[in-house]
Amino acid sequence: MKIGIAQINTTVGDIQGNQEKMLFAYEQMCREGAEIVVFPELVVCGYPPRDLLLKGGFVDLCKTKLDEFAAEVKEIPALVGFVEENPGEGSPFYNSVAFCEGGKWSTISRKCLLPTYDVFDEARYFEEGDLTGVVKVKDLNIGVTVCEDLWNQPEVVKRQRYSHDPVGVLAEQDVDIVMNLSASPWHMGKGLDRLALLRQTAESCNAHVVYCNLVGGNDELIFDGRSLVVSPEGEVLFEGAAFGEEIAVVNLDKEPEEFVVESEQNDPQIRIENVRKGLVLGLRDYTWKSGFRKAVLGLSGGIDSAVTASIAVEALGKKNVLGISLPSEISSEHSRDDAKALAKNLGIKYRSIKIADIVSASESALAGIFSGKGMDVTEENIQARARGLLLMAISNKFGSLLLTTGNKSELAVGYCTLYGDMCGGLAVISDLPKCLVFDLANHINRNGEIIPQNTIDKPPSAELRPDQKDEDSLPPYPVLDGILERYVERGESASQIISAGYSNDVVQDIIRKVDRNEYKRKQAAPGLKITPLAFGTGRRMPIVQRFDAASVV
Amino acid sequence: MKIGIAQINTTVGDIQGNQEKMLFAYEQMCREGAEIVVFPELVVCGYPPRDLLLKGGFVDLCKTKLDEFAAEVKEIPALVGFVEENPGEGSPFYNSVAFCEGGKWSTISRKCLLPTYDVFDEARYFEEGDLTGVVKVKDLNIGVTVCEDLWNQPEVVKRQRYSHDPVGVLAEQDVDIVMNLSASPWHMGKGLDRLALLRQTAESCNAHVVYCNLVGGNDELIFDGRSLVVSPEGEVLFEGAAFGEEIAVVNLDKEPEEFVVESEQNDPQIRIENVRKGLVLGLRDYTWKSGFRKAVLGLSGGIDSAVTASIAVEALGKKNVLGISLPSEISSEHSRDDAKALAKNLGIKYRSIKIADIVSASESALAGIFSGKGMDVTEENIQARARGLLLMAISNKFGSLLLTTGNKSELAVGYCTLYGDMCGGLAVISDLPKCLVFDLANHINRNGEIIPQNTIDKPPSAELRPDQKDEDSLPPYPVLDGILERYVERGESASQIISAGYSNDVVQDIIRKVDRNEYKRKQAAPGLKITPLAFGTGRRMPIVQRFDAASVV
Repeated sequence: MKIGIAQINTTVGDIQGNQEKMLFAYEQMCREGAEIVVFPELVVCGYPPRDLLLKGGFVDLCKTKLDEFAAEVKEIPALVGFVEENPGEGSPFYNSVAFCEGGKWSTISRKCLLPTYDVFDEARYFEEGDLTGVVKVKDLNIGVTVCEDLWNQPEVVKRQRYSHDPVGVLAEQDVDIVMNLSASPWHMGKGLDRLALLRQTAESCNAHVVYCNLVGGNDELIFDGRSLVVSPEGEVLFEGAAFGEEIAVVNLDKEPEEFVVESEQNDPQIRIENVRKGLVLGLRDYTWKSGFRKAVLGLSGGIDSAVTASIAVEALGKKNVLGISLPSEISSEHSRDDAKALAKNLGIKYRSIKIADIVSASESALAGIFSGKGMDVTEENIQARARGLLLMAISNKFGSLLLTTGNKSELAVGYCTLYGDMCGGLAVISDLPKCLVFDLANHINRNGEIIPQNTIDKPPSAELRPDQKDEDSLPPYPVLDGILERYVERGESASQIISAGYSNDVVQDIIRKVDRNEYKRKQAAPGLKITPLAFGTGRRMPIVQRFDAASVV
Repeated sequence: MKIGIAQINTTVGDIQGNQEKMLFAYEQMCREGAEIVVFPELVVCGYPPRDLLLKGGFVDLCKTKLDEFAAEVKEIPALVGFVEENPGEGSPFYNSVAFCEGGKWSTISRKCLLPTYDVFDEARYFEEGDLTGVVKVKDLNIGVTVCEDLWNQPEVVKRQRYSHDPVGVLAEQDVDIVMNLSASPWHMGKGLDRLALLRQTAESCNAHVVYCNLVGGNDELIFDGRSLVVSPEGEVLFEGAAFGEEIAVVNLDKEPEEFVVESEQNDPQIRIENVRKGLVLGLRDYTWKSGFRKAVLGLSGGIDSAVTASIAVEALGKKNVLGISLPSEISSEHSRDDAKALAKNLGIKYRSIKIADIVSASESALAGIFSGKGMDVTEENIQARARGLLLMAISNKFGSLLLTTGNKSELAVGYCTLYGDMCGGLAVISDLPKCLVFDLANHINRNGEIIPQNTIDKPPSAELRPDQKDEDSLPPYPVLDGILERYVERGESASQIISAGYSNDVVQDIIRKVDRNEYKRKQAAPGLKITPLAFGTGRRMPIVQRFDAASVV
């Protein structure tokens, strides 16, 4: 059996454009000999559609475009993820799969397991499906599942999120192939989790497993593609492109390929390469899909803006990236040199604009009301906000997307200025802890210096006070990042973190900083997610709250 | 039977403080002769706890504090809403009710219907409960339900969101009283919906219904209290304070009171009074619960900032509100006069700071890079951002919460500047359409002029260009608000709105403006919710998307 796998990059809400992509892919796979083709989850509307589903006319238009697509499907059948209205009681829709054949379609499966954790909100829209269908094509029985339906297998998953296991249901039937239509967002290390689930499915059902995943960036989420075909013995027969489209026809009778998906976990070079590729895809898709072609960003001479600029150049091309240096009286000479050298290495346009006059005009305007008050963080914020004002003006005037350059560590502890350096439409590296920013900088320089070595070597500084260093206010980044991973990503309590060997005072201080700065993150730009838990839609903290997490023993 | 109803104002995460409030209320109700007392839903941790539930130690501490509370409960039993760990498969917790008596507690009910729409995310945390318990107290059978459990009655609700109806289950048992522990956020007109559900419950179960609701503001949500007791005949025996705490003991054998809850719908004065009270409570609780005591805001001389300032004075006291006028070269003389007159009428501190030097320093700094480019919205935004910079500096220096003053109409169409007039920690009137802002201004002046009449009478203007009027860019506000209510709140399609009598071009223009400005709302301050659908957590649109809603026919 030859399976066509359409790992395509859809745009949320672009129902017409997605249909055109589907037809193009369908025809290509038919020409290449596919006997059945499979598309990702909710391919008709793009994923995640979120509250667009509730807009008048949206779901109707999806149905019309599915009808039109199905009319083009003649002998070679297709499995297509779509949103189906629920005429009965319960949530308004199903997350369904259409089996298209002979110019018509019918529902073959409805997603049973609805992820409603982290970034997922599926119970908000979808009713739990009661249908994991099996369809016969060329004498083979094909069981059809949707994404999360594979993610509750008791043999693999430690704690069952659901009381139902659709794989167990299929295992009791005579199934030759299990198809899985997915829209599974990437984060570092997720590839191995998926493979374990596919292998268990293959074993339980004694069947081939075909996993068709979405690719592309949509808001914060990066879908990595990497569709997979696994034999009943658990061997990988095919792996789709990582972070790119691929329209493939896979013969299930072929020999196993070299094992690729596992390498992310074991090889730090592949791991950081995936981070780079993911950010490039996420940045490009955010920019292009929202109608921008150009980006602008502030270049401080520091490592965060250097890494962001490098990603932007790879995503958009050097001609489309503008770097602005915004030195103050406090900025060191080496910062200006480093910013300029980076722009030269990247080949991007570069301008330098001084902020001194805006800062002094602001301080003069405030002199009356501030009379008798000493200097504090206010004056530092004024500098950051003067920069934000200038960068936004340039963004407005030239129609360029402003990229904000903060990392996860500083966003966590609030070491950033709201409406200042936090200005921007997309936060490119806001899910990268500072230590990972260093790794990525070194990776970007793998074939020669792009980011000036001095940018990597010098101690990080916000340069908002003379001789300021990040380590004046924060513990060394390896310590900070260790605490943050435990507190933010793993949800450990203060006492758990302390018992892992961190100092009591430092842990309490960091936890309080994280909690106190929720209001800043509430107003932060969307940031590309690369870890299991990013700030943003996957973390929903109250802003006003009084749980003293630092005191939990 | 005498029922103690503890309509108290909890703080999310303040597990110790909430427990102290519970004990205080419990003792008072016992002294006043209560034979059983009831607290709101999730009273132990406050509502909504959101992802605090996932923090290490949080749920454990809730259990400890519930144990301690129960130890104080001797003869008079208490019903307490709390979060219960789910030891089995499924979501990690239950939204449960503890029956406390004789120093101990046991789970009597687990919330069956979990709202996962609008602002609610309960399926993210809670497993569907399987228990709507009945407990015998003084020979009366008391059925115990939690909030949404009453909201799926087929006799009242048009479309069943759930396949289960806990009221139907209770109706088949011999129940004398149905208790409902709620945390039901307010919006205009919600009181009547609740009453209809309570009356249907009373009829179906032939029982008294006791509805104990939370009161207070938590982030965007305003809980109005207004607990109710309804007789088996559907008569209102008690209504708790609106937007205030009340610890009451209600004798079920008393005569029906005057009917109050229905008046919101019928009487426009009560309706607008509730809006004012709701905003005052929401603003005060946001400020106080987050540790602020003082607020600052920009006074433009326009109606939005005038209404916001009036609400702030009622919430925080005139000594704690600082008004800043930030005139530009373009600002009209009457704007400055109106701002000053408002401050005088309110008795607040008032300063005027000119932005001209910051604007000209910004324009000079940008002159090189902007060379050859004409004027556009960039220059307007620079003015708004200069104001934002100054207001944030004052907020930082004095530790005052900056209030942002935009209304729902302008936030909808993006008639506001990100990092400019959108700066602030709380958006007080961001869920009030402009027409409602006018109603509220007139209501505020009900006993004499507080908001200068000229502020109400003059045509609205952003004053970012000479002689600019809102109506140069937007349709008249009654038209705009009509379209927005249909498009944003009711989810109507373009063709539905047009067929209601609005012009095709205007509808398409407004819809495109709403959709194009999703990115601004993503970074907006949290805003107090007063309508059935506010921007914020209850509306989750993708930012990058290509559904052309304006073209839906």
